[in-house]
Amino acid sequence: MQNYLPLNPRYEEWVRTSFARQNFMATIGATLVAVTPGEVTIELPFRDDLTQQHGFIHAGIVTTIVDNACGYAALSLMPEEAGVLTAEYKVNFLAPAQGTKLIARGWVIKPGRTLTVCSGEVSAVQNGQEKPIAAMLATMMTIQDNGAVQG
Amino acid sequence: MQNYLPLNPRYEEWVRTSFARQNFMATIGATLVAVTPGEVTIELPFRDDLTQQHGFIHAGIVTTIVDNACGYAALSLMPEEAGVLTAEYKVNFLAPAQGTKLIARGWVIKPGRTLTVCSGEVSAVQNGQEKPIAAMLATMMTIQDNGAVQG
Amino acid sequence: MQNYLPLNPRYEEWVRTSFARQNFMATIGATLVAVTPGEVTIELPFRDDLTQQHGFIHAGIVTTIVDNACGYAALSLMPEEAGVLTAEYKVNFLAPAQGTKLIARGWVIKPGRTLTVCSGEVSAVQNGQEKPIAAMLATMMTIQDNGAVQG
Amino acid sequence: MQNYLPLNPRYEEWVRTSFARQNFMATIGATLVAVTPGEVTIELPFRDDLTQQHGFIHAGIVTTIVDNACGYAALSLMPEEAGVLTAEYKVNFLAPAQGTKLIARGWVIKPGRTLTVCSGEVSAVQNGQEKPIAAMLATMMTIQDNGAVQG
Repeated sequence: MQNYLPLNPRYEEWVRTSFARQNFMATIGATLVAVTPGEVTIELPFRDDLTQQHGFIHAGIVTTIVDNACGYAALSLMPEEAGVLTAEYKVNFLAPAQGTKLIARGWVIKPGRTLTVCSGEVSAVQNGQEKPIAAMLATMMTIQDNGAVQG
Repeated sequence: MQNYLPLNPRYEEWVRTSFARQNFMATIGATLVAVTPGEVTIELPFRDDLTQQHGFIHAGIVTTIVDNACGYAALSLMPEEAGVLTAEYKVNFLAPAQGTKLIARGWVIKPGRTLTVCSGEVSAVQNGQEKPIAAMLATMMTIQDNGAVQG
Repeated sequence: MQNYLPLNPRYEEWVRTSFARQNFMATIGATLVAVTPGEVTIELPFRDDLTQQHGFIHAGIVTTIVDNACGYAALSLMPEEAGVLTAEYKVNFLAPAQGTKLIARGWVIKPGRTLTVCSGEVSAVQNGQEKPIAAMLATMMTIQDNGAVQG
Repeated sequence: MQNYLPLNPRYEEWVRTSFARQNFMATIGATLVAVTPGEVTIELPFRDDLTQQHGFIHAGIVTTIVDNACGYAALSLMPEEAGVLTAEYKVNFLAPAQGTKLIARGWVIKPGRTLTVCSGEVSAVQNGQEKPIAAMLATMMTIQDNGAVQG
């Protein structure tokens, strides 16, 4: 990944405040574990109420956390007063989402004024080892969002 | 959509049993409202604990229900003893996921022995009218899954 | 598809002029066969110099014509002085691209000021019948392009 | 990228023979510049007959060469007598395809018996420097293809 200079000196606060406002993150028990310019990491402990028919974490949950990792990676490089919306994404599923927790990492591959392109990956921790389970390629869109921190 | 002949005469039971085994569907309150050969519809009433930072339903939830609609549309055309896995999908988000409920529809555009390609769309019901909010193009994979109904 | 009202009364001229400027369309022998508001059709006769290792038309050529059909479908709904760029697309391949000619159709599923979302499909004409061979879901971006007609 | 052990000791010959059979590669002047287990690089000198309306290389050509790089990266890890088909791909365009030549690199992120998931990127050489212009995430499918080398 490239080294990016954030436009917003409060980028981490901006990201953490927005994440905290996502009720769905609390619902599933996801936490924001790292925010650096252009890269974000989110973790999710395994929970039985998030599973699909084979007992694995649902693909939609895997997508949720890597979408957030990518979206907040994009937001970390945007100017103050900006917000981020997911325009679209594609996810490939590489292996079943089983293990003690999932780790989603998203990073910017091309920042832009209007569109930011991100890559992401999700790993599952199994017997203490990380195994890749999903890969994302996503397009994030900059919006005006001046209430994101001030509330 | 084409008219498809199901290979499995118990396709609807097969789909409904698998859906009922997805704990995550109960967690979010999604229900299976229609199953026909090659097409499935799922509904989700709006709930505040499923929202992102702007108060809309999270993109990951929108994805979850249309992934299931597509996956079960694919399963409805598979032979007995088959199961389905999502290989990959792409979603475009068209408008904010707000309203009283979401309706996800998935349908098969190309059935296959190994891979089945599906399209899907999600609408939000706003003031009694359906507004399209997302479009999916997905690849589903046939697997052996002989425990899906018998348990 | 919805009924769209074009913002640019000269939308068809705008599309045809831009298409004519694509050297690559002449190189492969593709022609613009229909332009209506929000939908465009392009045809390509089979040619042996466009094939991959099995003698089918290359996936990249299939993608090329449906990308153009989608991009010009988007352009047909844009205001005067606008141009279009492909932000991203996804294509699923449904069957081998063989036959006497390919027909690519692209249509707008969600117009927008900045981003326009399109769907597309490609069929191959085999023994006088059209067989679907590819499906696209694409994001087009509006740009300023005031030289597109005036040259 | 991981280190992969090829299943087919003649993987490079297998890839080069298949590439040489793609008429479309000769048509556009693309060459295979590197084949290692799980990674392939293809180059394409700029040519005016491959351009779109702004004089850049057409998105479909950019896609063509990175599709081939990904597909042959997948083939390099497959057993003898196997062939590869593109099931689907998604491409994000990051910058205009202009410069003296394009370099497409594809690599395997998850090999599999039936499906192989690949990532790819395309750079444009401008003033002697490589600039990323596109990113791909693709699904390749293993097929039987025992005539690929023997002809």
